[in-house]
Amino acid sequence: MNERIPVGVLAATGAVGQRFVQLLDGHPWFELREVVGSERRAGRPYGEAVEWRLPGGVPDGARDLPLLAPDERLTSPILFSALPAEVAGETEAALAAAGHAVFSNARSHRMAPDVPLIVPEVNAGHAAALERQRRERGWSGSLVTNPNCSTIHLMLALKPLQDAFGLDAALVTTLQAVSGAGYPGVPSLDMLDNVVPYIGGEEEKMATETRKILGGYDEARGFTDAGIAVSATCTRVPVRDGHTESVSVRLARPAELDEVAAALRAFSGPPQELGLPSAPRRPVILLDAPDRPQPALDRDRERGMATVVGRLRPCPILGYKFVLLGHNTIRGAAGASILNAEMLVAQRHLPAVGGRLSASAR
Amino acid sequence: MNERIPVGVLAATGAVGQRFVQLLDGHPWFELREVVGSERRAGRPYGEAVEWRLPGGVPDGARDLPLLAPDERLTSPILFSALPAEVAGETEAALAAAGHAVFSNARSHRMAPDVPLIVPEVNAGHAAALERQRRERGWSGSLVTNPNCSTIHLMLALKPLQDAFGLDAALVTTLQAVSGAGYPGVPSLDMLDNVVPYIGGEEEKMATETRKILGGYDEARGFTDAGIAVSATCTRVPVRDGHTESVSVRLARPAELDEVAAALRAFSGPPQELGLPSAPRRPVILLDAPDRPQPALDRDRERGMATVVGRLRPCPILGYKFVLLGHNTIRGAAGASILNAEMLVAQRHLPAVGGRLSASAR
Amino acid sequence: MNERIPVGVLAATGAVGQRFVQLLDGHPWFELREVVGSERRAGRPYGEAVEWRLPGGVPDGARDLPLLAPDERLTSPILFSALPAEVAGETEAALAAAGHAVFSNARSHRMAPDVPLIVPEVNAGHAAALERQRRERGWSGSLVTNPNCSTIHLMLALKPLQDAFGLDAALVTTLQAVSGAGYPGVPSLDMLDNVVPYIGGEEEKMATETRKILGGYDEARGFTDAGIAVSATCTRVPVRDGHTESVSVRLARPAELDEVAAALRAFSGPPQELGLPSAPRRPVILLDAPDRPQPALDRDRERGMATVVGRLRPCPILGYKFVLLGHNTIRGAAGASILNAEMLVAQRHLPAVGGRLSASAR
Amino acid sequence: MNERIPVGVLAATGAVGQRFVQLLDGHPWFELREVVGSERRAGRPYGEAVEWRLPGGVPDGARDLPLLAPDERLTSPILFSALPAEVAGETEAALAAAGHAVFSNARSHRMAPDVPLIVPEVNAGHAAALERQRRERGWSGSLVTNPNCSTIHLMLALKPLQDAFGLDAALVTTLQAVSGAGYPGVPSLDMLDNVVPYIGGEEEKMATETRKILGGYDEARGFTDAGIAVSATCTRVPVRDGHTESVSVRLARPAELDEVAAALRAFSGPPQELGLPSAPRRPVILLDAPDRPQPALDRDRERGMATVVGRLRPCPILGYKFVLLGHNTIRGAAGASILNAEMLVAQRHLPAVGGRLSASAR
Repeated sequence: MNERIPVGVLAATGAVGQRFVQLLDGHPWFELREVVGSERRAGRPYGEAVEWRLPGGVPDGARDLPLLAPDERLTSPILFSALPAEVAGETEAALAAAGHAVFSNARSHRMAPDVPLIVPEVNAGHAAALERQRRERGWSGSLVTNPNCSTIHLMLALKPLQDAFGLDAALVTTLQAVSGAGYPGVPSLDMLDNVVPYIGGEEEKMATETRKILGGYDEARGFTDAGIAVSATCTRVPVRDGHTESVSVRLARPAELDEVAAALRAFSGPPQELGLPSAPRRPVILLDAPDRPQPALDRDRERGMATVVGRLRPCPILGYKFVLLGHNTIRGAAGASILNAEMLVAQRHLPAVGGRLSASAR
Repeated sequence: MNERIPVGVLAATGAVGQRFVQLLDGHPWFELREVVGSERRAGRPYGEAVEWRLPGGVPDGARDLPLLAPDERLTSPILFSALPAEVAGETEAALAAAGHAVFSNARSHRMAPDVPLIVPEVNAGHAAALERQRRERGWSGSLVTNPNCSTIHLMLALKPLQDAFGLDAALVTTLQAVSGAGYPGVPSLDMLDNVVPYIGGEEEKMATETRKILGGYDEARGFTDAGIAVSATCTRVPVRDGHTESVSVRLARPAELDEVAAALRAFSGPPQELGLPSAPRRPVILLDAPDRPQPALDRDRERGMATVVGRLRPCPILGYKFVLLGHNTIRGAAGASILNAEMLVAQRHLPAVGGRLSASAR
Repeated sequence: MNERIPVGVLAATGAVGQRFVQLLDGHPWFELREVVGSERRAGRPYGEAVEWRLPGGVPDGARDLPLLAPDERLTSPILFSALPAEVAGETEAALAAAGHAVFSNARSHRMAPDVPLIVPEVNAGHAAALERQRRERGWSGSLVTNPNCSTIHLMLALKPLQDAFGLDAALVTTLQAVSGAGYPGVPSLDMLDNVVPYIGGEEEKMATETRKILGGYDEARGFTDAGIAVSATCTRVPVRDGHTESVSVRLARPAELDEVAAALRAFSGPPQELGLPSAPRRPVILLDAPDRPQPALDRDRERGMATVVGRLRPCPILGYKFVLLGHNTIRGAAGASILNAEMLVAQRHLPAVGGRLSASAR
Repeated sequence: MNERIPVGVLAATGAVGQRFVQLLDGHPWFELREVVGSERRAGRPYGEAVEWRLPGGVPDGARDLPLLAPDERLTSPILFSALPAEVAGETEAALAAAGHAVFSNARSHRMAPDVPLIVPEVNAGHAAALERQRRERGWSGSLVTNPNCSTIHLMLALKPLQDAFGLDAALVTTLQAVSGAGYPGVPSLDMLDNVVPYIGGEEEKMATETRKILGGYDEARGFTDAGIAVSATCTRVPVRDGHTESVSVRLARPAELDEVAAALRAFSGPPQELGLPSAPRRPVILLDAPDRPQPALDRDRERGMATVVGRLRPCPILGYKFVLLGHNTIRGAAGASILNAEMLVAQRHLPAVGGRLSASAR
């Protein structure tokens, strides 16, 4: 137990920060040692400083950690960032420069040419860009990002299709949960008996992030665009947690329905092979029931770390269509960062945590 | 006032039946004289027999009408049917045979080769099929249907595009309100903090009805298929009234964004030209605000008789995309039938109400 | 039409301000001439400056009014204030001093010893305090307040009981709608699949305001406390509009259930006698159906100006109990102020609007 | 493992039945061996026969159990009944006569003079009535009931007050979740943007059950009424799980606020002393935060087995008031029955499971 890797959480009192704290509670490899919040509340124990809004209360291990101010010097080799995009850009870069392995949820660096944007089952190989990142930026630490909550689950569903049949285009309408907008986030007058058919910036992110994640990486050319057309319409619906997405895809090669189903069912990646602590046994679950997946019933499958697919059937226009669902603040945010960290630790991509690896990551 | 045309409502105590009764209250051309309900409640005054579930209470004019049993002989020349599909088929045909002009919401006869499926701004010309209907079936009355609630609003948005640019394909994801399923309808456990990504039969109806409505009719060949590919995914969301639809379209000819907007804005049809009592001034309203239309704010525009479109923008896969919203039990059901009746009265398609026309329809 | 009294609305772009603008549209006595908003948006036409959030869009008559900055000099004799309490205190007093008849929704002056807190069916006589107000404050205008949204509807239900049987105590649990908190107001994460059992300051207001409103006023002693014990628990529930209240009362004298029902049913006051434009025909509607009133079905009765009571029955502890419902932003806020203004105009309590009275108020 | 006591669930495919199956999964003392459902689905494996509607899917241990028809002969010594009241009366009695220890959620036998209505922390002593029950009815088995979901949580909050100060009266308004009505249960049109201020029979049950549970039992006189006045108003709100109750109490003896708080905090009973597997560590949790408890945040405390109290403060009419929250299908239904069974096993009240006790209940 002494050998767990010390980790910290930036913006630990916010909605995603609380999810980090919750998911790190009792983590077998990582030990939460530092929680950073706003200047104003700094100094108080986390359990008092936070307005905890997840079921179950503040985990015992976090309750007494002092909330650190943003400018405090941190010592944890791994930092999870729930910072808002406005401050994430500069802060995360400074911390990576200072030697920390930073795992970020913010959009700020996602599209940078030397920052990997990773979904570990999908593009683990993009971690190779970290070498170039350290070299060119002169950082002793590193910066890895995970995609937007809607994109992550789409990636988990599209990757098996891309691998098996090639992928030309994906047309998506999302029905997103309110927790994705944080707290206070979406006003209740917008969500009772209502749908808001717009989420600022989300549609663009789904398109650009998808093309980076499903694209390649090599030392010479860096990240290459996947050349997949993505058309997204993003809506907000009266659901607490769990983004639903209605997806139509045009595959590059003809495929039978049962081949498509088989590709989704068989999907697996490095997190499963490595048996990472936060890895879902099955990253993609394909349901047969005609009226599933549903947020209230399916978002917590595999502890919120899976993408649940249903209603797979032909699309008379693009070829195939299906509905997917994924937990937006677990696999879609905090859980995604933690899984990224687990994978990079296991694959020894993080010099910063070097010596501890052999002890903990097994 | 004496000269208003007597009308009746079948299944008048159900959800759509109540909407008929509400919309017919104070109607300038039609006078509600007969309300038909279940055997069990027949004989009681409508105001007592109905469990009224619309805001505002039972209209005074309907309160004291005796609820008639299903087998009672009716005298109103026009009958509006809110019958469920299981019984609508036979009952509506019998009433048309008996001389009534029947306007039906049920799916039973919609696809029949001699039954017009009408959205008056879109395919008023299909009413010509009534002649053949009377001749071939030997009916003295007639039967006209209106489409499913999701299809109607899609038609109002697609027709101007078909007219201006030709239309190849429409890919739609709906976010439908619960009132579309009647009462008791959808259980609250399915709708609190949840989305149900499936509505039985709805996706097929959107495809087949669209092709009939946007197709042609001529005496020789009857109804001809519009040859438009429609791919629908229908979901139920926690909204009382107002279906939202996320739509991508492939046009037959190239078009600029402002041409598409202009086509939607300029759209109008016979109900507007004839100044029908229930006609919206503008059947399609195009909004510029980035986050509209929204059910809670926009479903009642034009007294629930318009289709409200927003977020018109290019779709990188199919060409253009937008979001539409329409009231599902007004323009999507009872109001649609009433507007059909108004148009057929004004166009003198209904011998059954013959002599009264000149007096009332002005 | 020229003879309508010019009126203005303070904080006209907020939630309650919009309701004022909506209710004043087409008002027979009052003509909306001035809309005041934040410095930042001032100068733009109201229709552009406002983010309108009520069904139906900005009324035509208000669309082109220029939004005035808070420090602009106003000319309307009557001003309706939707100002937040933080600024209402000073601003409203200054405007009353400057000669305007101010009708305020804010809590700032409600409990002041020379400011009437009026529900016109309940304590119209309190308007007599205006004389003293003008004299002591040296104001040429006046300031009249209406109670908190939860209190108003409670007053309409309690007053007939107080009149008929005397009233010792009222124990209330409210289930309040989110529109009462304005926009953005209550976060959706607090309201989806949830109840918040606390509304800051609300419970105290219900107690103190009730005792002032149901108390007396005379020249010598000013307002006298009604001496009624009020115990309130205020909760927020996932409802857009319409506060529900579960009420138990201890009457001063014994009463039969049908006497209590009769007292509620017979209730009426000066607004009904004077036929004020915004007055409900029946200020209290008593329903017999066992499961009513319900917000979705009953909040709009009498155009949102009535209090709807149901479930009247004995309470084994306090004597009688019932459930009431009222629209919180119409009769509970903007409509209440407007009705107050109508009554004071009709009763000639407002010298500021003097000469115009004979012309308009008939 | 072999030594666990075989148990069965009646009406195992319904809402409460599913909760039983879920809570019994991996139970240390009980092993689910028999699941009984409707004639129509009998014979199929439970995993196929059930339309599972709880998060997480059908537990592995239940998936392959054959669904038994209602008339099948059962062998499990303990049976948990989720039968609806219409059939529970006769069926449960027959099974108790046949030697089973039946634990019932139905209201049918709750008020019978020889049937204990037990909340184990509150009135464990009522189990003594089983001897008389067996003797007078000639049963070899037994029948124990648990109260209605709203009553159970009220009991857990009132018992410490009764013990410490005596209790004269409790006035309650409930805000109940929809899962209490089963599936399909409450229509979504009743619960979106709405409150239903009525739940048939619930208010009476809260009064009569409270008086039995908080009353005494002795061999000579049987159950004696607690003589406490209970006045309940029961409403349904748009919440999936978790009943909220606003409670005012009149104590028999004067008490300081901190004494009342201390009594609630110190409360404990036989389940805690015996360390029963389903017992909450703390049956009553008193929160200090002004805006708690909230269903979405607090219903799952102590795995849904606790009553969470907040907002404890003086009531100017009755003395003290507070808000409580409890999970209605866990501690309020299935979990309550299981805890009852655990206690009776541990206290050796069940001859039917006699010999196995020593092995399992430790």
